Amino acid sequence: MMLNLVPFVSVDKMMQLVLHLGIERVLIDLAAEIEADFRRWPLFDKTPRIASHSDVGVIELMPTSDGVTYGFKYVNGHPANMKQGLQTVTAFGLLADVATGYPVLLSEMTILTALRTAATSAMAAKHLAPKGATTMALIGNGAQAEFQALAFKAICGLTEVRLYDIDPAATAKCARNLAGSGLNVVQCATPEEAILGAQIITTVTADKTNATILTDNMLGAGVHINGVGGDCPGKTELHRDILLRSKIFVEYPAQTRVEGEIQQLDPDHPVTELWQVITGATQGRTSAAEVTLFDSVGFAIEDFAALRYILAKSKATGLYDNLDMIADPDDPRDLYGMILRAAG
Amino acid sequence: MMLNLVPFVSVDKMMQLVLHLGIERVLIDLAAEIEADFRRWPLFDKTPRIASHSDVGVIELMPTSDGVTYGFKYVNGHPANMKQGLQTVTAFGLLADVATGYPVLLSEMTILTALRTAATSAMAAKHLAPKGATTMALIGNGAQAEFQALAFKAICGLTEVRLYDIDPAATAKCARNLAGSGLNVVQCATPEEAILGAQIITTVTADKTNATILTDNMLGAGVHINGVGGDCPGKTELHRDILLRSKIFVEYPAQTRVEGEIQQLDPDHPVTELWQVITGATQGRTSAAEVTLFDSVGFAIEDFAALRYILAKSKATGLYDNLDMIADPDDPRDLYGMILRAAG
Repeated sequence: MMLNLVPFVSVDKMMQLVLHLGIERVLIDLAAEIEADFRRWPLFDKTPRIASHSDVGVIELMPTSDGVTYGFKYVNGHPANMKQGLQTVTAFGLLADVATGYPVLLSEMTILTALRTAATSAMAAKHLAPKGATTMALIGNGAQAEFQALAFKAICGLTEVRLYDIDPAATAKCARNLAGSGLNVVQCATPEEAILGAQIITTVTADKTNATILTDNMLGAGVHINGVGGDCPGKTELHRDILLRSKIFVEYPAQTRVEGEIQQLDPDHPVTELWQVITGATQGRTSAAEVTLFDSVGFAIEDFAALRYILAKSKATGLYDNLDMIADPDDPRDLYGMILRAAG
Repeated sequence: MMLNLVPFVSVDKMMQLVLHLGIERVLIDLAAEIEADFRRWPLFDKTPRIASHSDVGVIELMPTSDGVTYGFKYVNGHPANMKQGLQTVTAFGLLADVATGYPVLLSEMTILTALRTAATSAMAAKHLAPKGATTMALIGNGAQAEFQALAFKAICGLTEVRLYDIDPAATAKCARNLAGSGLNVVQCATPEEAILGAQIITTVTADKTNATILTDNMLGAGVHINGVGGDCPGKTELHRDILLRSKIFVEYPAQTRVEGEIQQLDPDHPVTELWQVITGATQGRTSAAEVTLFDSVGFAIEDFAALRYILAKSKATGLYDNLDMIADPDDPRDLYGMILRAAG
């Protein structure tokens, strides 16, 4: 009667695990796991995430499988939540054994999604940003900002982060949290000031609108844009002119054309799949002057890699609980008898 | 810091809840809840379930929403599991608030799926079976069999159930569990014996093959067939000739044409949507001699109704636990700071 118990990583256990391992170590490990799964991209079962939209937000399921393990994430996006003291994005995820269909892990993923998104961003930038990039503008200083800054420090050698948010309190919060991180943190009053001298520009804002965080005339040659916040229909951050002069990299085109910045472009506008850059099948950046854009919306394979990492680390450290989630009668055909016997 | 806690109905709590309420009461209530949601069918967000197939089984996600509440079920189907002492079908489900995306219930659904499937079958038969039907053949005596028998007793007035399974041990188990239920239980050695005098025939077998549990020459006029076990591509139970002379009722045609018995028919073969019979928009059975078939594969709205019922009953009885599943920092933008403070 042990098969009914599913290992569960609660929010508290996830925080303990991240603190135990060290957040930069976790970000480096996650980037390596995600990169390894991008290298074997063709063997995954892939589908655009299944979204249920309402006026105020979206709830999505993101499944995938490598034929041995199945995983999915539940995630919502509700920009107005913040005003009520709620998270804009919350998530949890599950891994299961393909051979039996039995779950093997349930985990919180609000924290893990922030970690895996940042690790994916930095992993992509390692392949796409100009050589020797050390300064990043970070536009949008909400729940995901610090994770982005630390991932770029740990994985890309970032030394300076330049913060901007329409709400100065968010910028102050982010600067306070990053004090002592080893990064040179500069609080900026305008987006223009934030991008001064930055070789990398990360946009990670939350409004569910076609916002224009960056316009074309703000951008110099050779920058790498890490566009994180445009991730559902009607939610974009970049002016269309920026897209037209950038070389655009995406995770899974069928999903990104609906959800990403490129929803503003023709459906046949050329894009490059990031996994093909990683395997060497195609080129990433082709010149120092080129503007590269990672139009990141988040894909199920990133969550799959992150969940497998958490399963291994939680097992190794004992940082998990057991959840009585799967009915497991002694005789599998006697589900009803199990209930009857519970009365005794 | 209470929003992080999601009510969780474990397997143990589900058994306590079913025993506390009484299993026939639960089946009657579930049938009423499911029927009520079938009456408002058009307003639901509907999609065929999202399946991940392997050689040995399938893992599926079944989401839906009524615009106020969102729900989904995770369910697998692995016929070979039984030989390893595992359940063929295991499941769990979730409800969330559409307005915020925050989960409001996580529940085991292995037991609940057996209950809701039986309640749906009996609810459909109430509308489709010949008047005064009192005897049912129950072919396939595995994990779901007793639930089917009791649902037809409680909801349709069944007095006799005639059991058949290729494994006599399964039939004996089922008969033992139903002793004292008030049903006249007859163990049969052949399918032909089982259907003798039966006005309703339920097939609920598990093999992932195009099996032929029933052939056309076995069937008399006027019976109602409740086909439960044919529920994924390559998994059917009835000979095609039976389908050709039956009036066929389905839950959601886009899903049933892929998964149900009607995968054997042309894609434009006429079928009737059950919800339209329930609302009175179309006719069910049109004569005493007609063979009716409910080609049931299970649809997300049935799980949605079942989960809402369990949420209400678990809250009313206190039969649930609280799960620390959603990160909820005091300042929603300060997810990173919450981790830092956990170190203190």
